[in-house]
Amino acid sequence: MRGNTFGRFLTITTFGESHGVALGTVIDGCPSGITLSQEDFEKALSRRRPGQSSITTARQEADKPEILSGIFEGKTLGTPIAVIVRNQDQRSSDYSPDMIRQGHADEVWQEKFGHRDWRGGGRSSGRETLCRVIGGVVASKILPQNVSIVGFTRSIGTHVAQKIPKMLTIKEVDRHPTRCPDHEVAEKISKELLACKTSGDSRGGIIEIWMNGIPIGWGEPVFHKLKSGLTSSLMGVGAVCGVEIGDGFSATSQNGNLFHSTKEGAGGIQGGISNGERIVAKVAFKPASTLGMNAKKGRHDPCIVPRAVPVLEAMAALVLADLYLATRLDRMDR
Amino acid sequence: MRGNTFGRFLTITTFGESHGVALGTVIDGCPSGITLSQEDFEKALSRRRPGQSSITTARQEADKPEILSGIFEGKTLGTPIAVIVRNQDQRSSDYSPDMIRQGHADEVWQEKFGHRDWRGGGRSSGRETLCRVIGGVVASKILPQNVSIVGFTRSIGTHVAQKIPKMLTIKEVDRHPTRCPDHEVAEKISKELLACKTSGDSRGGIIEIWMNGIPIGWGEPVFHKLKSGLTSSLMGVGAVCGVEIGDGFSATSQNGNLFHSTKEGAGGIQGGISNGERIVAKVAFKPASTLGMNAKKGRHDPCIVPRAVPVLEAMAALVLADLYLATRLDRMDR
Amino acid sequence: MRGNTFGRFLTITTFGESHGVALGTVIDGCPSGITLSQEDFEKALSRRRPGQSSITTARQEADKPEILSGIFEGKTLGTPIAVIVRNQDQRSSDYSPDMIRQGHADEVWQEKFGHRDWRGGGRSSGRETLCRVIGGVVASKILPQNVSIVGFTRSIGTHVAQKIPKMLTIKEVDRHPTRCPDHEVAEKISKELLACKTSGDSRGGIIEIWMNGIPIGWGEPVFHKLKSGLTSSLMGVGAVCGVEIGDGFSATSQNGNLFHSTKEGAGGIQGGISNGERIVAKVAFKPASTLGMNAKKGRHDPCIVPRAVPVLEAMAALVLADLYLATRLDRMDR
Amino acid sequence: MRGNTFGRFLTITTFGESHGVALGTVIDGCPSGITLSQEDFEKALSRRRPGQSSITTARQEADKPEILSGIFEGKTLGTPIAVIVRNQDQRSSDYSPDMIRQGHADEVWQEKFGHRDWRGGGRSSGRETLCRVIGGVVASKILPQNVSIVGFTRSIGTHVAQKIPKMLTIKEVDRHPTRCPDHEVAEKISKELLACKTSGDSRGGIIEIWMNGIPIGWGEPVFHKLKSGLTSSLMGVGAVCGVEIGDGFSATSQNGNLFHSTKEGAGGIQGGISNGERIVAKVAFKPASTLGMNAKKGRHDPCIVPRAVPVLEAMAALVLADLYLATRLDRMDR
Repeated sequence: MRGNTFGRFLTITTFGESHGVALGTVIDGCPSGITLSQEDFEKALSRRRPGQSSITTARQEADKPEILSGIFEGKTLGTPIAVIVRNQDQRSSDYSPDMIRQGHADEVWQEKFGHRDWRGGGRSSGRETLCRVIGGVVASKILPQNVSIVGFTRSIGTHVAQKIPKMLTIKEVDRHPTRCPDHEVAEKISKELLACKTSGDSRGGIIEIWMNGIPIGWGEPVFHKLKSGLTSSLMGVGAVCGVEIGDGFSATSQNGNLFHSTKEGAGGIQGGISNGERIVAKVAFKPASTLGMNAKKGRHDPCIVPRAVPVLEAMAALVLADLYLATRLDRMDR
Repeated sequence: MRGNTFGRFLTITTFGESHGVALGTVIDGCPSGITLSQEDFEKALSRRRPGQSSITTARQEADKPEILSGIFEGKTLGTPIAVIVRNQDQRSSDYSPDMIRQGHADEVWQEKFGHRDWRGGGRSSGRETLCRVIGGVVASKILPQNVSIVGFTRSIGTHVAQKIPKMLTIKEVDRHPTRCPDHEVAEKISKELLACKTSGDSRGGIIEIWMNGIPIGWGEPVFHKLKSGLTSSLMGVGAVCGVEIGDGFSATSQNGNLFHSTKEGAGGIQGGISNGERIVAKVAFKPASTLGMNAKKGRHDPCIVPRAVPVLEAMAALVLADLYLATRLDRMDR
Repeated sequence: MRGNTFGRFLTITTFGESHGVALGTVIDGCPSGITLSQEDFEKALSRRRPGQSSITTARQEADKPEILSGIFEGKTLGTPIAVIVRNQDQRSSDYSPDMIRQGHADEVWQEKFGHRDWRGGGRSSGRETLCRVIGGVVASKILPQNVSIVGFTRSIGTHVAQKIPKMLTIKEVDRHPTRCPDHEVAEKISKELLACKTSGDSRGGIIEIWMNGIPIGWGEPVFHKLKSGLTSSLMGVGAVCGVEIGDGFSATSQNGNLFHSTKEGAGGIQGGISNGERIVAKVAFKPASTLGMNAKKGRHDPCIVPRAVPVLEAMAALVLADLYLATRLDRMDR
Repeated sequence: MRGNTFGRFLTITTFGESHGVALGTVIDGCPSGITLSQEDFEKALSRRRPGQSSITTARQEADKPEILSGIFEGKTLGTPIAVIVRNQDQRSSDYSPDMIRQGHADEVWQEKFGHRDWRGGGRSSGRETLCRVIGGVVASKILPQNVSIVGFTRSIGTHVAQKIPKMLTIKEVDRHPTRCPDHEVAEKISKELLACKTSGDSRGGIIEIWMNGIPIGWGEPVFHKLKSGLTSSLMGVGAVCGVEIGDGFSATSQNGNLFHSTKEGAGGIQGGISNGERIVAKVAFKPASTLGMNAKKGRHDPCIVPRAVPVLEAMAALVLADLYLATRLDRMDR
């Protein structure tokens, strides 16, 4: 299986270049009989779309999803669901074939493939992530209704959210364009990002994802453990450079008796399998790679963290749905 | 593909329970004509084996590998290589069916599968990792000769190595039983682990892996990027709870202009593809889960970090060999 | 990997229902740098298209391919190639939800999935095969230039072609709408099919495929032998009910000394691997399943054999390209 | 996934050379809780074993299976089941490195891999099929109890069984060493094979497989249809050169109205999915390739058809179990 298909029981195959005709996703393995609509995709894509606020890129894309197959009379058929999004606002003239942008994948792609679509990064563009969001829509519908996946901005630059409610909904997180639920910190972040936009600087940050309602038993030893699938899928998103489950790196300096006195540090996963508690993952983003200085007039975000929240939620949903379906094969008596 | 096969172009399928008859690995996809011997496996397994020093578990296993297939007249045949290790020193009487050890996978396995091998964790035992080491031996032979993969103990508990040479060899790292190349810190770690062994406490830590000599172009966008593969493989090892590439979480608080002024923070990977620089991964281990208090007389390490070094090297080798083979399919003119 | 992806090194993922918005194929694993154009797809699809002659269905579909990704400046990028074909002439009114057509998959789909697209068979329609033809275009371009794949009608009903030239080209085969290169027999077939069209009867037949120019060594023991991949892919086409390599069933009654006195009966495959000779496969089609009597006004072919020729060629090309790419991984010295 | 793993939901990975240390199978994806014993494997292997009667090879192999993992207290654990069989009666001296046996895979393996185990065909030996039988044992246990898979010899050479009971059991078929249930024909076959043994000649034949008790709905459109999976698995067995489902090639000359007047000709599969009727497959074997004249003193069967019956049954069981497990993922309400 090649590089553009993800998953085993629920798979997505994605395609498309940033300035090509269209991007899209084919979802295979979705059971039949699930209610699914055009609106579901529109809603999800609008959460990732550029041009949403003053702190994001000025690139305006309607990102209108078109369902090509797999849904009939409002319900899934059990056949592949194909959804495409045509590219519209492509300012190719901002780019040229000999432009190798620092901090981008331009150089390694050129070396690897010999021939590349130099317009806006081609397939290495962050625009590729909309395909993941499309897949996440289907995955979310497959998951049991009491499962919720909520990501939020834990930090951007040196600003770290402190006051986070014990429970969170997507709606609450989306209230602020930074997707940071500590609104005091959120305001500081906004100011800093606006300044970055002016100066051509950029910031990284940390997204935290909470997965609630997952029963004991999801995860496939020994190579498709929940923690492997989850972190690998999150790490695959552009600019991600670190992932943690539960206490992560801070667990390394705790003493064992203390650490194991509660289940909390484990982040909901034991032996690679869900243990019934909330699953907590933290994801590190390095500072955005395209700065004002190295694209001709490239229109990019000073920080991709806020817009990456729905992308990470989608990846988490895909992994969880895959492992949820897999549990149907665990025992003979099921 | 189910949970016990790893890889796409080079695959390993592993099997075996901690106190069953044997553990083993089947490696498929190894090209023909590679020199490979019994000794190669023995050497690698001896680096992971328990009972090596005062700071590891007292369980004594010869861990004698037996090659069943795939090698003829000292060279690989291009057919599957099967290697098994029989279990010998199994004190099953240390365990009982109703013993659910805290911090272990016992409970979630029981819930997931309904039926489990309760002797020493069965397949969830750390002993499973010897199968990964077997796979790593073959992977290492496939990699170009100038590629080197060296892991070392960066920290255990609160003790962090500071003085690390710019270049390291496995031989140098193995000089100290802690596998910490800062020998001053290594001595402190040794003392602390001996104390843990007495008190029944445990420690976690961080392993750092350096991958040298990898040319530009390894990694398969968009779902089998080098960073995703590494994360999946490293995170899948028991007790691992975090992975970073390059600067990882510390990159999140740097400003973009500074971060992108050098290539170093990227840890050798750009756009998910190797960029020709050293690849650097950091791997967090939570404190060892089996403490003196919750196994009857379970003989376990106070810290698994030193013994995990060759396991992580093996996993890294498997991912790198897989992606190296994949590059043969990148272009038509190759 | 689910049911709508085919291949390992070169994969196609197909989607689309007969009367839905569009059908399409995503091809992953195509190396970069291959010249490929819109015209290549158009030409291939026109060979499969309905409405070509008096002996095929009256359904008129322009079957205009649209390339969405993976090709830039006339050459492949090494990224997924997505090509879609929109449905146009969909007379859904010919069908109704409660119509279960005899000899069709309607009933088993209903039972399997609970919910189905009842318009023209939905995804079980023969129209699905255009997606395979799209994949075959890319596969053909990957194969070495001296490889040729030519299929032709060996028989329809009781009419069996006898005079077949020793070498054949697609152009020669396409000269007659029946795709039978024995033009005397071809004329008899034409007459019979016209009669069938009037009477609402149908005919099956045999397609023979010749694969020339394949060197020794293609095929992956023990489960991806050339003969497994080839016959499985051919058998997967609708209405196919038998496949043979070389002498096939007639080999079963020959005595061994005679059979093995030449290489011919082996059909170019030994031990599951190509032996350098012409590869010969024969494919049996049962009579077309949709008769005048059981679709309302369903417009269907009295015999699908002629139109199936390019579909089988496409499937053969996909298998061969997959195994050709795989040979790059056979040895270390390559 | 490389060449030595088969299946998606239930996978087998096999290894081993004819004259190496051992052959074996790792079965992954078997649900937990299934009763399985050493005896199950012994019984199945004894049906394939050489040296059973005067008409088979004189090679004597105890073929003693050893279970290494995956079973505990008589039941499957949901972990990989590894079973090996050591080679014992290996007369390597019968072979030499420069011996290229006509009709064998020796030549193509040499060309493909450059290095091969020349002793008895190495991995290309028919001995490899014992690994498939091991897998079939597990598959059979997974299938619902009312499913039965029975293969029998339909013909050998020119002798075709005519009187076949409407229902058959394995026990009945095994009553005659030819596995031909028409005992009059069976006797003729016996005589001819004994004559072949003396003269160094060989015979091919046809095995027919009946699969009973399979409900509607097994098979995954469009690339993992039941007929594709069966063909791939049956065709992959050495010396097989043709596969038919239902009427197969004889359907091609029937007229459509007649053919579709009953369901029988379809052989239990419609649109690639089981339709609730008995599934019937016919499998053609070319004459055995190793004749007295071209191995030094190679001890081989004049006809492998009788011994191949349990091998084909095993492959059918593997495909059916895989597709049976897959149906658990078809719908949301299951």
